[in-house]
Amino acid sequence: MTVDLALIHYPVLNKRQEVIGSSVTNLDIHDIARAGKTYGVNAFYLVTPFVDQQNLIAEIVDHWLHGYGARYNADRREAFALIKVCGCLKDLYGEYAKQGVSRPFTLATSAKGLGREKISYPDLRQRLAQGEHCLLLFGTGWGLAPEVMSEIDAFLPPVAGGMAYNHLSVRSACAIVLDRLLGEESSPVVKCDC
Amino acid sequence: MTVDLALIHYPVLNKRQEVIGSSVTNLDIHDIARAGKTYGVNAFYLVTPFVDQQNLIAEIVDHWLHGYGARYNADRREAFALIKVCGCLKDLYGEYAKQGVSRPFTLATSAKGLGREKISYPDLRQRLAQGEHCLLLFGTGWGLAPEVMSEIDAFLPPVAGGMAYNHLSVRSACAIVLDRLLGEESSPVVKCDC
Repeated sequence: MTVDLALIHYPVLNKRQEVIGSSVTNLDIHDIARAGKTYGVNAFYLVTPFVDQQNLIAEIVDHWLHGYGARYNADRREAFALIKVCGCLKDLYGEYAKQGVSRPFTLATSAKGLGREKISYPDLRQRLAQGEHCLLLFGTGWGLAPEVMSEIDAFLPPVAGGMAYNHLSVRSACAIVLDRLLGEESSPVVKCDC
Repeated sequence: MTVDLALIHYPVLNKRQEVIGSSVTNLDIHDIARAGKTYGVNAFYLVTPFVDQQNLIAEIVDHWLHGYGARYNADRREAFALIKVCGCLKDLYGEYAKQGVSRPFTLATSAKGLGREKISYPDLRQRLAQGEHCLLLFGTGWGLAPEVMSEIDAFLPPVAGGMAYNHLSVRSACAIVLDRLLGEESSPVVKCDC
């Protein structure tokens, strides 16, 4: 079972549905790395093509891996060890190829079917149990741009609470998806009163 | 079904297990209000006895309810409408009493049983469906101080991913607890192959 996460900063949408590059948010790095480590994720890719943003990430990661942060909070160091930086999704797939790894089964959550495969959490859990390598994409800003959506192999149902309102932070959405997929409470309950 | 949340800033523990008051984190307010609104929570109490911190919260909330934030992002305004500020848990229970509401069934997550009632997510979902009013407490810093723990009626199992590592942010933990309790995927799956 191998699950990788990628947090996409370009291309994503802004509130006017225009394609933009978003800036890196410090607490996205911390929260998603911590959730990733808690749920046994293999790698957490921060995807941005902007060199100044890549340098900022490197500085933050270095603080928690090797600087004062590592001495102050060793738990945080373990989480930060999952982090890798990548310029774009194409480069990420190139990284897999270099390591001799096939392109993983690439997923995102979406309310729109977009005419492609949808998969339920129990079905994806089963595929993971059978050894499938998965890559979960999460968008910053107002979500993944259409050109990223078109790269996706299958969509998980959107994270929703059954209300009309559905505006979680990407940090919360990622934590919930990991819990649904890999959490101890997520095994299907098989009950029979026959 | 009524669920309230309270994010406690005092008394909580620091990394040396000393009782401290923590400072308010802006993204805790945003993420937990957004998750609360997404999952149909009734109220989100920010609990701090420090007047400067209460004023800071009031300023942030005002920006998103009535200031430029409300015009920039109306969704955020809906989430921020859940927020109430309280000096301490005793005051919070006093608020309920003033409104003629009984003290809610008060819960937190804990790995330690602490010699008191434990409750599973399905059992709590059932109690909620039967009309129980619940208050979920979340601690900032390194978690709730013992004097808060002793006020709790029952403990939910800790949020964990089955790994030795378990260091989620309070934002992530809260999102996951709400999804387990109130999410569409959380209904027990009743399957029978008899």
